[in-house]
Amino acid sequence: MVVNNVGKDIPQEYADQFGIYEGELAHINEYQEASRQTKPAKPNDEKLLKSIREAIEKTGVKDGMTISFHHHFREGDYVMNMVLDEIAKMGIKDISIAPSSIANVHEPLIDHIKNGVVTNVTSSGLRDKVGAAISEGIMENPVVIRSHGGRARAIASGDVHIDVAFLGVPSADEYGNANGTKGKATCGSLGYAMIDAKYADQVVAITDTLADYPNTPISIPQTDVDYVVEVDAIGDPEGIAKGATRFTKDPKELIIAQNAAKVITNSPYFKQGFSFQTGTGGSALAVTRYIREQMIESGITASFALGGITNAMTDLLKEGLVEKIIDVQDFDHPSAVSLDENDNHYEIDANMYASPLSKGAVINKLDTAVLSALEVDTDFNVNVITGSDGVLRGASGGHSDTSAACNMSLVISPLVRGRIPTFVDEVNTVVTPGDSVDVIVTEVGIAINPNRQDLIEHFKDLDVPQFTIQELKDQAYNIVDEPDPIEYGDKVVALIEYRDGTLIDAVKNV
Amino acid sequence: MVVNNVGKDIPQEYADQFGIYEGELAHINEYQEASRQTKPAKPNDEKLLKSIREAIEKTGVKDGMTISFHHHFREGDYVMNMVLDEIAKMGIKDISIAPSSIANVHEPLIDHIKNGVVTNVTSSGLRDKVGAAISEGIMENPVVIRSHGGRARAIASGDVHIDVAFLGVPSADEYGNANGTKGKATCGSLGYAMIDAKYADQVVAITDTLADYPNTPISIPQTDVDYVVEVDAIGDPEGIAKGATRFTKDPKELIIAQNAAKVITNSPYFKQGFSFQTGTGGSALAVTRYIREQMIESGITASFALGGITNAMTDLLKEGLVEKIIDVQDFDHPSAVSLDENDNHYEIDANMYASPLSKGAVINKLDTAVLSALEVDTDFNVNVITGSDGVLRGASGGHSDTSAACNMSLVISPLVRGRIPTFVDEVNTVVTPGDSVDVIVTEVGIAINPNRQDLIEHFKDLDVPQFTIQELKDQAYNIVDEPDPIEYGDKVVALIEYRDGTLIDAVKNV
Repeated sequence: MVVNNVGKDIPQEYADQFGIYEGELAHINEYQEASRQTKPAKPNDEKLLKSIREAIEKTGVKDGMTISFHHHFREGDYVMNMVLDEIAKMGIKDISIAPSSIANVHEPLIDHIKNGVVTNVTSSGLRDKVGAAISEGIMENPVVIRSHGGRARAIASGDVHIDVAFLGVPSADEYGNANGTKGKATCGSLGYAMIDAKYADQVVAITDTLADYPNTPISIPQTDVDYVVEVDAIGDPEGIAKGATRFTKDPKELIIAQNAAKVITNSPYFKQGFSFQTGTGGSALAVTRYIREQMIESGITASFALGGITNAMTDLLKEGLVEKIIDVQDFDHPSAVSLDENDNHYEIDANMYASPLSKGAVINKLDTAVLSALEVDTDFNVNVITGSDGVLRGASGGHSDTSAACNMSLVISPLVRGRIPTFVDEVNTVVTPGDSVDVIVTEVGIAINPNRQDLIEHFKDLDVPQFTIQELKDQAYNIVDEPDPIEYGDKVVALIEYRDGTLIDAVKNV
Repeated sequence: MVVNNVGKDIPQEYADQFGIYEGELAHINEYQEASRQTKPAKPNDEKLLKSIREAIEKTGVKDGMTISFHHHFREGDYVMNMVLDEIAKMGIKDISIAPSSIANVHEPLIDHIKNGVVTNVTSSGLRDKVGAAISEGIMENPVVIRSHGGRARAIASGDVHIDVAFLGVPSADEYGNANGTKGKATCGSLGYAMIDAKYADQVVAITDTLADYPNTPISIPQTDVDYVVEVDAIGDPEGIAKGATRFTKDPKELIIAQNAAKVITNSPYFKQGFSFQTGTGGSALAVTRYIREQMIESGITASFALGGITNAMTDLLKEGLVEKIIDVQDFDHPSAVSLDENDNHYEIDANMYASPLSKGAVINKLDTAVLSALEVDTDFNVNVITGSDGVLRGASGGHSDTSAACNMSLVISPLVRGRIPTFVDEVNTVVTPGDSVDVIVTEVGIAINPNRQDLIEHFKDLDVPQFTIQELKDQAYNIVDEPDPIEYGDKVVALIEYRDGTLIDAVKNV
């Protein structure tokens, strides 16, 4: 057992394999990029296949290989289940899967794990039943949780080598040019899939909308695609937009949002050409609305908005309050439409969004990001992956990436949720180290990280109550009881990679 | 000495090093792609440098390294001379340069070669004084001539490893996002530069128009750029468009163009959704005009036009006769404007344009291409690199790429130029093998390659006189005298790579 820089125990075996977290930039070094084994397509070669089965045969998927998927279809995704079902039928075993994330809709994965079809998993997140099953210990090997930037890093550095990427695309031509803005089940940006397309040895584009050649715009080019398969449906448009958040009416969330907006609009970064990422929760949308009011009042416009995009942001683009949207993922249908139609709305890949090993991610140029939390501890460490019961049910997402890179990261959260305190002495699982978190925003007030004396000084007259993080925790414990410690088992069920590839935490079975 | 598949002698030393040409697809195999050594940019790192000298220092350019440039600024390029002058001043020697091509404006290169600053050169072409100096034998090592697709192949496969790419870009922000459509000296597509940006260990973006972050559209992303340098001027807009061709009034050229248009519009490929690349010579523009008339008459539209783009093509796009333009390079200002403004005009990189090792280049989907020639021989081999005096003065360009990959390649040429026959028993230098050439078009009629019995059959009633290639040569020799053989020296001054990396010819000094 080794203790890392945020005080978490990492079993020796995994510490040796991954290294342990030693600070935000401790392991960012020059490196040789990974590359793919490429089969050139000759002039008369055709790429269009008749079925997913034929694609599995042609790409030669076999026991022990790594295959990947993307999560742009979210709860509407049909692709991962279709491919894994076919692989299972063909008797292939011991597959490693490297989807960019896993949703509730992927519940059939549980059986594929139990049957030995899937033996390794890496993902940004694990929801509901899949998360619960993993937490129960159905896998021999722990799941590796990676942030969006960390996944791009892992692929670019070769830590994850994808043999075959099966990428659902809303439209493609028969030579593989694909995008997410045309077709029956549009998802907008294909930012997470673009990385797989560039680094996987072989890429299968799966679509339900076969377009005339050349299909444009080109998010994934023909030069990244080996085969194309047309299926009846790649996803459910309603599921793709499911959970797309509405503006909250909860009074507590509105106060949190107001406090966050006050912090942002009174910060040194709120000036002409500032940039922000506000995310997708109900409070986050409200933050965007309050910032909008202040932008109009101050006559300030933003140079760009970043991240998972919602129509709250595309509305700002239309109004001219945001000059450009830089988009790695869309969370609702209007955002996908905006990407298609608005010349100032740009698609980027996950590497450019957030990779710590890139020649400079967009998050490095970001002024402020608003992030959520399941738990925050008195060292400002944030948990967004396990519930208060210790069960895997969240997602790492871009949390640790943006909070490390932007000029001022805000973590917004109510003091308690139901009978559960959000503020604790020590988070069950660290996803984002406290060093990356600048301001905590709650309904009662804010806590500024003592690392940021500049902000403490700047905000000394801010019209929002200010506390230490310890005081916020005490207030939470005054409302609800201190939680009982979780009784974990002995088996490591998930490894939490920091964005640099080292381990920031390890999650045991419950 | 080894004789290759087109009957050309290749010195043993170079045959061993490169392999010899053995057929269009003889050496297209699965391979591991090359990759770059990457220095990650950390959140607060800045990329903007004060001068080219500082960029040379920061990137650590030193004796023996390979640096690259692109030729999108053509005769207006200031960048290569600026960088090489600075390198020379700093006393750095033994540099290999890998520009995508070399223009007349790069005459200062001659001194850098003579002074030992530059000791290796690869390029698509060599013009006028630089070509003449190389042909005289000023270099110890032969220049390696590569086609546009072959250069992309060489970079992707690692045959050419670029240590530092110095890329002139019409606009860039301080973090490196660059395009060719905004700024003071716009060139349109940056298709050839995009490859260098992806594979070079380090990339310096040199611009005279520093844009606000994030600069869009993003042709070269910040994730491919290490440093940005602002200079007074990267190029001369007039030089960028220089040689941009006008519609010919020469009666002979017009007849050639008419004959070519008849071949195309009576071919089996001329149907709804066909595709074409007509190139940039005076005759080529006339071909485009004649095809246009037939398209309107037949009610046929093209799915895409490809290649080096001129306003003759962008006019067709505006008229709706061409649905999309796929653009690796622009030859005039209106084309650059079209790329900026027209949503159906798309920029692609050289890999996607023409690389034989890509997962499928656009030329593989091309119905017909119209190409030029300096010489054609009775085996249909084409020379586009050396003049009748044996001096290097042309460019390989996309000639061998498109002719190999498209469904029907046309090589258009007058029988003679001045007192010099274009049709000969054996071309001085083979760039494109006869196997790739389908139809030769002259002012007196056409010759169809006997390999294409399908086309001979199809065209038997075509309203254009038909000859054997031998007959065309005889007619040329009836007009002018058979040329005296060129008296070459013993030194190999240029190696002509076929697109697959093997040697199709070697050029000696004169």
